[in-house]
Amino acid sequence: MANIAKKVSWSGRGDDRGERTPLLNGDEEVKNNRQLSGGGIFHIGRLSTVDLEEEITPEEDIVRSRPKEIPHNEKLLSLKFESLDYDNSENQLFLEEERRMSHMGFRCLEIRRWVICGLIGFLTGLIACMIDIAVEKLAGYKYFAVKQNIEKYTELGGLSISLILWAVLNSAFVMFGAIAVAFVEPIAAGSGIPQIKCFLNGVKIPRVVRLKTLVIKVFGVICSVAGGLAVGKEGPMIHSGAVMAAGVSQGRSTSLKKDFKIFEYFRRDTEKRDFVSAGAAAGVSAAFGAPVGGVLFSLEEGASFWNQLLTWRIFFASMVSTFTLNFFLSIYHGKPGELSSPGLINFGRFDSDSVQYNLYEIPLFIIMGALGGVLGALFNIINYWLTIFRIRYIHRPCLQVMEAMLVAAVTATVSFAMIYFSNDCQPLGQDKAEEYPLQLFCADGEYNSMATAFFNTPERSVRSLFHNPPGTYNPVTLGVFTLAYFFLAVWTYGLTVSAGVFIPSLLIGAAWGRLFGILLSFIASSQSIWADPGKYALIGAAAQLGGIVRMTLSLTVIMIEATGNVTYGFPIMLVLMTAKIVGDYFIEGLYDIHIKLQSVPFLHWDAPPTSHWLTAREVMSSPVTCFNRVEKVGRIVDVLSNTSTIHNGFPVVAHTSENDEPGKICGLILRSQLIVLLKHKVFVERASSRLSQRKLQLKDFRDAYPRFPPIQSIHVSQDERECMMDLTEFMNPTPYTVPQETSLPRVFKLFRALGLRHLVVVDNENRVVGLVTRKDLARYHVGKDGLEELHLAQT
Amino acid sequence: MANIAKKVSWSGRGDDRGERTPLLNGDEEVKNNRQLSGGGIFHIGRLSTVDLEEEITPEEDIVRSRPKEIPHNEKLLSLKFESLDYDNSENQLFLEEERRMSHMGFRCLEIRRWVICGLIGFLTGLIACMIDIAVEKLAGYKYFAVKQNIEKYTELGGLSISLILWAVLNSAFVMFGAIAVAFVEPIAAGSGIPQIKCFLNGVKIPRVVRLKTLVIKVFGVICSVAGGLAVGKEGPMIHSGAVMAAGVSQGRSTSLKKDFKIFEYFRRDTEKRDFVSAGAAAGVSAAFGAPVGGVLFSLEEGASFWNQLLTWRIFFASMVSTFTLNFFLSIYHGKPGELSSPGLINFGRFDSDSVQYNLYEIPLFIIMGALGGVLGALFNIINYWLTIFRIRYIHRPCLQVMEAMLVAAVTATVSFAMIYFSNDCQPLGQDKAEEYPLQLFCADGEYNSMATAFFNTPERSVRSLFHNPPGTYNPVTLGVFTLAYFFLAVWTYGLTVSAGVFIPSLLIGAAWGRLFGILLSFIASSQSIWADPGKYALIGAAAQLGGIVRMTLSLTVIMIEATGNVTYGFPIMLVLMTAKIVGDYFIEGLYDIHIKLQSVPFLHWDAPPTSHWLTAREVMSSPVTCFNRVEKVGRIVDVLSNTSTIHNGFPVVAHTSENDEPGKICGLILRSQLIVLLKHKVFVERASSRLSQRKLQLKDFRDAYPRFPPIQSIHVSQDERECMMDLTEFMNPTPYTVPQETSLPRVFKLFRALGLRHLVVVDNENRVVGLVTRKDLARYHVGKDGLEELHLAQT
Repeated sequence: MANIAKKVSWSGRGDDRGERTPLLNGDEEVKNNRQLSGGGIFHIGRLSTVDLEEEITPEEDIVRSRPKEIPHNEKLLSLKFESLDYDNSENQLFLEEERRMSHMGFRCLEIRRWVICGLIGFLTGLIACMIDIAVEKLAGYKYFAVKQNIEKYTELGGLSISLILWAVLNSAFVMFGAIAVAFVEPIAAGSGIPQIKCFLNGVKIPRVVRLKTLVIKVFGVICSVAGGLAVGKEGPMIHSGAVMAAGVSQGRSTSLKKDFKIFEYFRRDTEKRDFVSAGAAAGVSAAFGAPVGGVLFSLEEGASFWNQLLTWRIFFASMVSTFTLNFFLSIYHGKPGELSSPGLINFGRFDSDSVQYNLYEIPLFIIMGALGGVLGALFNIINYWLTIFRIRYIHRPCLQVMEAMLVAAVTATVSFAMIYFSNDCQPLGQDKAEEYPLQLFCADGEYNSMATAFFNTPERSVRSLFHNPPGTYNPVTLGVFTLAYFFLAVWTYGLTVSAGVFIPSLLIGAAWGRLFGILLSFIASSQSIWADPGKYALIGAAAQLGGIVRMTLSLTVIMIEATGNVTYGFPIMLVLMTAKIVGDYFIEGLYDIHIKLQSVPFLHWDAPPTSHWLTAREVMSSPVTCFNRVEKVGRIVDVLSNTSTIHNGFPVVAHTSENDEPGKICGLILRSQLIVLLKHKVFVERASSRLSQRKLQLKDFRDAYPRFPPIQSIHVSQDERECMMDLTEFMNPTPYTVPQETSLPRVFKLFRALGLRHLVVVDNENRVVGLVTRKDLARYHVGKDGLEELHLAQT
Repeated sequence: MANIAKKVSWSGRGDDRGERTPLLNGDEEVKNNRQLSGGGIFHIGRLSTVDLEEEITPEEDIVRSRPKEIPHNEKLLSLKFESLDYDNSENQLFLEEERRMSHMGFRCLEIRRWVICGLIGFLTGLIACMIDIAVEKLAGYKYFAVKQNIEKYTELGGLSISLILWAVLNSAFVMFGAIAVAFVEPIAAGSGIPQIKCFLNGVKIPRVVRLKTLVIKVFGVICSVAGGLAVGKEGPMIHSGAVMAAGVSQGRSTSLKKDFKIFEYFRRDTEKRDFVSAGAAAGVSAAFGAPVGGVLFSLEEGASFWNQLLTWRIFFASMVSTFTLNFFLSIYHGKPGELSSPGLINFGRFDSDSVQYNLYEIPLFIIMGALGGVLGALFNIINYWLTIFRIRYIHRPCLQVMEAMLVAAVTATVSFAMIYFSNDCQPLGQDKAEEYPLQLFCADGEYNSMATAFFNTPERSVRSLFHNPPGTYNPVTLGVFTLAYFFLAVWTYGLTVSAGVFIPSLLIGAAWGRLFGILLSFIASSQSIWADPGKYALIGAAAQLGGIVRMTLSLTVIMIEATGNVTYGFPIMLVLMTAKIVGDYFIEGLYDIHIKLQSVPFLHWDAPPTSHWLTAREVMSSPVTCFNRVEKVGRIVDVLSNTSTIHNGFPVVAHTSENDEPGKICGLILRSQLIVLLKHKVFVERASSRLSQRKLQLKDFRDAYPRFPPIQSIHVSQDERECMMDLTEFMNPTPYTVPQETSLPRVFKLFRALGLRHLVVVDNENRVVGLVTRKDLARYHVGKDGLEELHLAQT
């Protein structure tokens, strides 16, 4: 088993800290190992403890750097991922604070939330602006140098020198980016959208919203785009916005080790999630100039419970972000105050008067949508196998850097070869639309048309495909380009560099869409209506992107906003629908594939429709480790340090009797709360005594959030082990419960709508009989032969 | 008390059916009258029974036509409104059906949902198209006739004849509309948006989604717009779409007494709500050409639990609706297949190149937003007092018709006077932008500028204010127009005609916004940037509309989509935010005022922030009327026919002991289910016997939905009263419960997120101690001095 089971992790390195032996003696064999036996297959000797802290202490780093073989399989569900607590623990401390607060206090909080959202939007816009300018500058220098060189050697002969120069320049840029990602912060690889999706879904992905990740991400994306890879800078913006939001809203940074002592009220998962939604929306908004699309993206990926005020705040952040980006870019471009240009990618205006569609074109659009679905599925399948290959064989950072450099060099070579061998010369227009027209072997006053597609940032290429007048591209050029770029893009996604897949997808789609349009005008006799292949390029771009990522509403709106034209809304929607239906027939969307390969317990919108025959009784984990209202410190420490269990929530019961009969529920307490209690030694000598209580405040919990220390770092003396802890005022006295007979869809709905982490299952006497967590629900999914159950694994 | 307490009802007539004495002897005095004593003030002798059916039998009509004085007060919460069941009752029948269904079956259902959404969009688009064409034709004839007349009498003298002609034409149109509304279907009055808001919020408003309502609504709105009232046809479109959706999705019509035997699966509140959301979105989409805005409107007003697939379906309906409207209008306008024009109102294109805004204009926009907030609040306050006045003195249908005719005549007179006395002559443009240029006393080749504002459908006036070149309007004209139209619009909203408030608001705002722009260009020295008052008209329109209706995200998106320009997104958002903040300081939004005046138990997004000190124990109603698992038929009949209680949900308990100790909960059954059981006489002879059960199917419940017969229509013999009913397989065995200590915000969150109707409160032994319903939660709201509690009243 072990030899086929290899390491898979977004962080790209063995991040398992299960080597340490517990510092304390776990004297109690906890019964609760149903989840492990439920998983059944993978009993791995070295089990990880709970990933409660994310700081890396030196001795851990040694452990980390040794790659460890762990199983990967999309039919598994990893137990290493924790959930976020989107349900407030309404314990006495919390309620007292809320009750103390006046109406004015709540209003101030609300104002603070708005200020934070404004800040998030502003900073996200700034980052987008910075990335844009940096990429433009660097790519400009690069293309200028290569162009000079090519022009020099076109006459002299020896263009291979130009090729080498180009390849070396590309590889160098990519190398810096890949080194930063692979060695410093592996989580910064890729677009970050799957990770943000998981975060908003309620799964804690370690280190995903940290400042260090942001810095590496920004640096990495600049390097990879400037390095000429088939990537875009838009996806990473979404991640950047989310990190910004998490940082600003907490008023402190762990990476900088600085606490500004502000916004302390917002230091809990509920509030943080809301701000991260706003950040992601601001990122989309900056990337595509699509504030409404940003809001819808956040809602589509994240929110389960829609709240009007929250949405309005998210929209504010989005708007501020676009505004900031436009404002600074307008200054940079020397037209200060001209705020009308959209985000990072500008599709250019589709003037509704000149480019119209007609009723009889709609079937054509649907065919294009289906084509996009098929091509998207092909993209995803190839990328899936490539990812599996990478997981097995390319998991060392230096190998990863080398692969990235190789791809960069190959990209340059392929581009060069295609430019070299293409004979597609086009007359140089009056308006000098091309930034770097490459004459090469063309006659004077002409330029190489293939070069405009490759010798350009991908954003510019998309724009030319949309807007260049008919006849600009030769069909063969477009066909070859589509093919080459398709495979380059497939190969590139998943490299250890920061990069997005939006722009390459759009570019591929725009290329074959334009080709489709050109072919149509060959076939059709009447030239007039098919005259403009630009609109087919747009539809093709939508189809291809939809076929790959399978986003729905938000993508439609993003496309509408980016084209600045509502007219194409209906065809774009049809195309995206078709692409999704066709694509889903073959394989899932790209982000979902990568989420599944990570075995993340991702909760979808609804329970599988055919799951009504399952009830809470079958789904729940049992028996449950419970605590008494007043519990012995020793037992708590033992339970928490037991490495064979990874429970984070413990029902508190009235009094567990000695026999196995479960106790009546009276609350729920979290591991993190217990850790803080143990750390502050909130003990009483005997069960009856009530001394030395109440020295803890909500502030103590907030200070520890979100990186609570591990149980191993807390030293409890043998005397203290005999003390008691009164959990009454720290536990949540009113956890949500369901009876055992509740059907899975009903449990699912409650769990998903309220963003729960633990749902207690009780019998009709209100006794705890089980606990439903995210993994218990995410396990069930609809496969080819009806309902399937994923295995759980301690990876 | 009684002499100040008058009738208030959306239906405009005494609709209280409390006169009937129960047909069966209620031998048991139900203890549960806490809600009445909680209300405290209003002990009204004649209590209404539950409004379980909406059919009007002849003897009821007699009762209805007698206006009855009932208290109205915005500090009251009416008990007459029922909730909708957005939580599926997962009883055995339901579960068995779901379990029998294959994966393919669920897929077919999904396809059926899509088909229904497509149909909804198509039909809504058709209705919009019909209204548009009818209004254009009728208004065209009217203006043509009046114009001819005026031109004739301008030379001859005796323009008073023209005035009379105009006034009579207006009044005649309005009379037809008002008669239809007042005498046939009073619920069709107004825009219908408050009613749809309530429906989506989960409150059952009788007769609001019936075909008859739709017919009257469409007829009414054509009459009132053609009648020249200060109204728009956009609001009613939302209502029309919703009715369409409710009708199509149920596959039958009560008004037509026809059951098509299709879509039977969707005959429950959960599914119906989803389709009504889609219908409302399709209505917005058709009205403003704003499919995304439509989706957001539905979500903002209705959804609590966001579901990706549902949203995508709603979006589909919206898109189809806009598409249908465009398609048919394009045929009507003789340009078939030209699909690029937006919805009913077309703001015209704001070309982003010519009309830009600059950073230093943003403070000006914010000032305009504040102004809009103040003017909007003034509008709402005046309309509030007017509504109170109408409730007290104008509640007879004939009075209502007369008032509407009076307003129509006054509108014509004011318009005429203003045109007559204004000396604002403008040269006739080359492009003949004005449809009916009125020369009046102007020189040849000139036209009266005031007349363009009045002598036009409001939609056209808005468009001219946005787009006419600078200098078209004289400031004095605009000022007088604003003032006159403001008061006309205030007076008009709330009349017994079908009409919306969107367009009048936009028109008022556009007028003062343009005035603002013109004044600015007088003040500023540099003419260049302030040159175009059109953009100030747009901002003013947004500010005024935002100040009146206080919608946020959806309104921003609607405005963006209607202008077809993303550039103005940021200023429009700022303006709407400012208008809302300023307006909220004075009074609530117009729709909320009207909802409050109806004492509807409307649930907002969150519990009041300062309500953490309240717990379920304080909030709940208790004691609760419970049933045993196997209950005597006589007792059920007695409880249901007890007119002093209006309970719709009954917890089922294991066995209520003889003493007062409450029983352990084992399920929840609804009045509607019991009614069906009684109707089908699902009785057993003795408690132990299990014969004659299981003849009932889910189909029987669906056939009865949504108009279950009243208990009085079911005759139970004395023998049958001694039989038993086994509720086990019909009750929902897993109702959601909360412990008594749960805080109000937590209860609220559960209730709102899951769309519950009944939430059972249990003690720690799982015994039923109380029941939380919508009224118990809607009672609490934040007033001037902190948390306030509304009184409950049996109105």
